[in-house]
Amino acid sequence: MANTWQQLVADKRNRQVASIPKDWLLEDPPAADVLDVTRIPETCGILTAQEIRITNASVGTLLQNLSAGEWSAFEVTTAFAKRAIIAHQLTNCLTEIFIDRALERAKELDEYRRTHGKVFGPLHGLPISLKDQICIKGLEATMGYASWIGRYSTSNSVLVDTLESLGAVLYVKTNIPQTLMFAETNNLVFGRTLNPYNRSATSGGSSGGEGALIGLKGSPLGVGSDIGGSIRIPSGFCGLYALRPSYGRVPYAGNVNSLEGEDSILSVLGPMSNSLDGVKVFMKSVVGQKTWERDPLVTRMPWDEAEYSLASHGGGRNLCFAIIWDDGIVVPHPPITRGLEMTKRALLAAGHKVLDWKPLKHKEMYDIALGIWGAASAEDYKAVTATTGEPVLTTMDPEPDQDTYNTQRLRLGDTKGSTAYELWQVQRRKREIREEYLQYWNDTIINTGTGRPVDAIISPVAAYAAPPHGQNRDANYTTVWNVLDYSAAVLPVTKVIPSLDVQRPAHKFYDHHDRYNYELYNPSKFAGEPVAIQVIGRTHEEEAVIAMAEIVDAALQAQKARL
Amino acid sequence: MANTWQQLVADKRNRQVASIPKDWLLEDPPAADVLDVTRIPETCGILTAQEIRITNASVGTLLQNLSAGEWSAFEVTTAFAKRAIIAHQLTNCLTEIFIDRALERAKELDEYRRTHGKVFGPLHGLPISLKDQICIKGLEATMGYASWIGRYSTSNSVLVDTLESLGAVLYVKTNIPQTLMFAETNNLVFGRTLNPYNRSATSGGSSGGEGALIGLKGSPLGVGSDIGGSIRIPSGFCGLYALRPSYGRVPYAGNVNSLEGEDSILSVLGPMSNSLDGVKVFMKSVVGQKTWERDPLVTRMPWDEAEYSLASHGGGRNLCFAIIWDDGIVVPHPPITRGLEMTKRALLAAGHKVLDWKPLKHKEMYDIALGIWGAASAEDYKAVTATTGEPVLTTMDPEPDQDTYNTQRLRLGDTKGSTAYELWQVQRRKREIREEYLQYWNDTIINTGTGRPVDAIISPVAAYAAPPHGQNRDANYTTVWNVLDYSAAVLPVTKVIPSLDVQRPAHKFYDHHDRYNYELYNPSKFAGEPVAIQVIGRTHEEEAVIAMAEIVDAALQAQKARL
Repeated sequence: MANTWQQLVADKRNRQVASIPKDWLLEDPPAADVLDVTRIPETCGILTAQEIRITNASVGTLLQNLSAGEWSAFEVTTAFAKRAIIAHQLTNCLTEIFIDRALERAKELDEYRRTHGKVFGPLHGLPISLKDQICIKGLEATMGYASWIGRYSTSNSVLVDTLESLGAVLYVKTNIPQTLMFAETNNLVFGRTLNPYNRSATSGGSSGGEGALIGLKGSPLGVGSDIGGSIRIPSGFCGLYALRPSYGRVPYAGNVNSLEGEDSILSVLGPMSNSLDGVKVFMKSVVGQKTWERDPLVTRMPWDEAEYSLASHGGGRNLCFAIIWDDGIVVPHPPITRGLEMTKRALLAAGHKVLDWKPLKHKEMYDIALGIWGAASAEDYKAVTATTGEPVLTTMDPEPDQDTYNTQRLRLGDTKGSTAYELWQVQRRKREIREEYLQYWNDTIINTGTGRPVDAIISPVAAYAAPPHGQNRDANYTTVWNVLDYSAAVLPVTKVIPSLDVQRPAHKFYDHHDRYNYELYNPSKFAGEPVAIQVIGRTHEEEAVIAMAEIVDAALQAQKARL
Repeated sequence: MANTWQQLVADKRNRQVASIPKDWLLEDPPAADVLDVTRIPETCGILTAQEIRITNASVGTLLQNLSAGEWSAFEVTTAFAKRAIIAHQLTNCLTEIFIDRALERAKELDEYRRTHGKVFGPLHGLPISLKDQICIKGLEATMGYASWIGRYSTSNSVLVDTLESLGAVLYVKTNIPQTLMFAETNNLVFGRTLNPYNRSATSGGSSGGEGALIGLKGSPLGVGSDIGGSIRIPSGFCGLYALRPSYGRVPYAGNVNSLEGEDSILSVLGPMSNSLDGVKVFMKSVVGQKTWERDPLVTRMPWDEAEYSLASHGGGRNLCFAIIWDDGIVVPHPPITRGLEMTKRALLAAGHKVLDWKPLKHKEMYDIALGIWGAASAEDYKAVTATTGEPVLTTMDPEPDQDTYNTQRLRLGDTKGSTAYELWQVQRRKREIREEYLQYWNDTIINTGTGRPVDAIISPVAAYAAPPHGQNRDANYTTVWNVLDYSAAVLPVTKVIPSLDVQRPAHKFYDHHDRYNYELYNPSKFAGEPVAIQVIGRTHEEEAVIAMAEIVDAALQAQKARL
C-alpha cells in the first residue's frame, strides 16, 4: 500500500534527525526572534578554539595546512561537520547528512598522506558541501519532492567522482526550493532555510542551503547550481564569494534537475565559498580534470592560466569597468546603490576606469527566460509530483495573499505552457539578442581609452539585500547573464547600515514590480545584511572573471583599510 | 499589388540568367541523357590549359602559387568562375552569381600583394563558394523560398567577414533544397541540382549545390551547413573531402536558416573541398580568427596544433579504428561495404588496428532527431511561405507516388508538431543517450590494446552511393553524429564498379525502409559514382579528426599505389 506524501515526509524527517550527531545539538537554541545568528557558532560552546580557527580559515589556508600536515583531514572534517550541524540548527540548511562516511574518508586521506608522504590531490582533505540535487551513490537526492523520497542514487555524478579524485571530503547536502525555480529556499520535505544574518529574511535560492551554511562557515566551499541566479542570489544574500560559470565548464552529468530537456538556457554548477581562493581552486582543479571525457556537455577547454593572468585584458593594469546602477526593471534599494558607489571609488583609487553601463534589452531578456522555462515548467512539476499528489508550491510566501501574489513574476508552477513552435520563437529572439549584446559590448571600445572594450560589467546581484521570506519576487539582475551565458562572479561589498541607507523619495515607477520593490524597503528591516555585487565577463571568461573579481575585492579591501 | 510566387520566381530566374557571363556558355550542352559530365569542363573548350591546371590544383597548391605570385588572384578567380559557370550548366548548382564583384576583389588583392610585398591573409586569392544561406551584404539569400526573393542581406555574416579578412574571394552561392531539411537539392526557385557523376542521381543535400560544384572543380573550397548530414551526404555523393565540426567552432551568426530557435541539435557550418588540405586550412584559419568575439555561439577555443599532432591519440602511431559495417537501420549496398573493406585493409597495412563498432541506439537517436525537428518544422515552413502561399515541398521525388512516399522518413513538412513539454522529453532522452554513448566509447579501452579507447569510428556516409532523384529517403548514417555532436570528416574511397559490386541475396530486413533500400540497388544504376566514408571523433576533436582523416587517406592512397 502506497504511503501518502505526508507519511513519506514524516519518515524522511525522522531519518534526517537520526543522522544528526547528538553531541552537537545546541543546549540552548536561540528563540525564533533572535534574528542575527552569525556569532552563535563561535559562542555556543560546541566548537573548540582550534575548530573555530579551522572553520574561520580561507580555503587557501585550509589547503596549505592540510598539505603541510599541520591540520589532519579528520580534524578539519570534524570541525566543519560540527559547525554545519550548528548552522543547520540555526537556519535549517541541510538535507542529507553523512558525517560518519565523511570521517571515514578523512581518515583514509590522512592514512594516504602518512603512507605516501604526499597529498591525495589538490583538494586533499577539504570538506565540500553539495546542493541536494548532486548525486552521491547510496544517498537520496529528493530535491524537496516527497515523490522522490526513497530514490537512492545508484552512482556518483561526474562531479562527485571528480571532487573525490581531487581529495575532497563530502559530508552534507544542502536545501533547495521545491522545483529549484525560486530565488528562495523552501519545500515540503525539509522546510524553509533562514538567512543567518536575519532569520526573518530568506537565504535566497535556489542554492539557499549552501548560502546559509557557508554564511555561517559550516562549509568552506560548496557547489550550487544556477539557471537564473541560483548560485549568485544566495551568495549575495549570505555574504559569500561565488562564480556562475558558462555552460559546460563544470560537469553536470549524473545529477537530478528540474525542467529536464530544456536545452536552451542551461543550468550550470559552480562554486560558493567564504573566499575567492575557494572559487579559484574549485574551478582550476575541476576544469583540470578533463571531465569532457565523462560528460558530453562539458566543453573541451582546459584551465587557461594566461587568461587568468588577464592576457586578454592588458595584463590587468588599467582595467575599465562599467557599472549597472539600475537595470530598468527594478530600481535598487539604497544600500545596493551605496555598494556600487563604494566599488566605483575603490576601483578609481586603484587606478582603474569606471564607466556607466546602460542595460540593453534586459527586460526583454528576463521575459525570454521566463518564457522558455514557463513553456513546460508546470507540466514538468505535475509529472514529477504525480506519484504522490504532493502539492506544487507556486509561491515562497509563508502567508500568501492574493494581492502580493500578483506581483510575483517567478510563478512557473501555473503557466499555461507553449507549443514547440512558440518556444522556438522565444529561443530565436534570445539568439538575436545575444548577438546584439555582444556587438553592443564590443562597441564600448570607443569609450574606454584602453584600446579594449569594457573589461567587465559590475552589477547588483539583486535590487535588494535579503528580503523577508516570500518577498523575493524577481531575479532580473542575475537571469540576464544566464540568457547571455556570461560568466559572473559574486563578492560581498558591505552590509546594510540604516543610518547611511535611508529610504529615498519615490521615483517614477517602471511598473507595479518596481513600486512593490520600492515599498519593500525599510532600513531597519534589512539592517546588517550583506550587500554584494557581480563582476561579469563574457562567455567562457571564467579565468579572467575570477582574476578581475580578485582585483575588485583587493581594491575594496584597500579602501576599507584606508578608512 | 503583390506578385504571385510564380511571378517572383520568373523574375528571379531571369536575373540569375542575366548574371551568367555569356562568353562562358556551352556551345553544345550535353543532352539530358548524358549522365556522367565530369570530363566536360576540361573538354568543352571554354577553359585554357592554364585554367585547367589551376582548377585541378589542390587548395594547398593554389595557396602556395598565389602566395608566391606564380598565379594571380585574378587569373585564379577567373579560372574557377569559368569552371563554376560550366558546372552550373551541367548540374544547376548555383544560386547567386557575382563574378564581376569577385574579379574586382581579386584585382585589389593582386594590387595589395604588389604594393605590400606580402599576401593579404592566409587565404589570399582563394575562391570560396558558399551555400545559399550564407549572407553577403547586398545579395539575396532566398534559400529556395519564393517568399524570400528580394530580401537583400543588409550586412555580411560573421563568416563572410572572416573569410574576406583572411583574403578569400567569394564569387558564387550554391543551391539547396527548400527548407534545407532534405538530403537532396531541389526547390521552386532554382530547381534541382544534379550529380556530376550521374545526372539521373541526386547530388545529395542539403549542401548539394556545393557538392556538384566542387565535384566538377568549379570551386576549390566551399562552405556547407550540416544539421543531419547536409555537408557529408553531398560530399560523399560527389567525391569530396569535408568536415562536420562540433557546435560552435565555425561562426554561424548572421546567416539565414530553417527551424530558427531550435536550440538542441544545432546546424553547423563546415568546409567541403577537393582535398583534405582545403578542409584543414579552412578550419585552422577560421578558428584562428577569434570569432567568439563576434558570434556569441562560438566556443572560445583556438586551433590546437597539439591536438592536430594527435597528442591525445598517441602521436598518431598505432591508432585503433572501429568500423560500422551496418547501423542496424539500413544495410549498406555492396559498394559501400567494399569501401569499408578497402579502408580496413589499408589501415591494417599501415600498421593500425581495426575493430568492429557495434552501433548503440542509433535507431533511437535517429528518431530523436526527427522528433526534435518535427516538433515544429511544419509550422516553421508554413510561417515562412505564408507571404506568397508557395507550396511547401514534402518530397524530393520528381514523380511522387503514394507507395514510395510512405517509405520516406524525412518528411518534416507535414508533421503534427509537439508541445514544448513533449519536445523536452525527447531532448531529455537525447542527453541521456549522449552520456551513455560517451561511456560506451570509453569502455572500448579494454579492447584496443593501445591504452586508449578507440581513436576514431569509421562509418558509411549513407547506405548507398548517390541514388536516383527523390530516392534518398534517409540520413541515419550521418544524423546520429549530429545528435551526439561528434566531429566527422568525409573522404572518398572508391567508385561503384558493377563487376565487383554485385547485388547480394536478400537479407532479413529490419523494416520496410531497409527492404526499400535493398531493392533500390542495381549496380548499373550506380556505376561510377563515388563511395565515401566518415572518420568520426568526439566533440571538439576537429583537429584530431582532420589528422586522422589524413592518415586514413594516406593509407588508402598507398594501397592504391601498391595495386
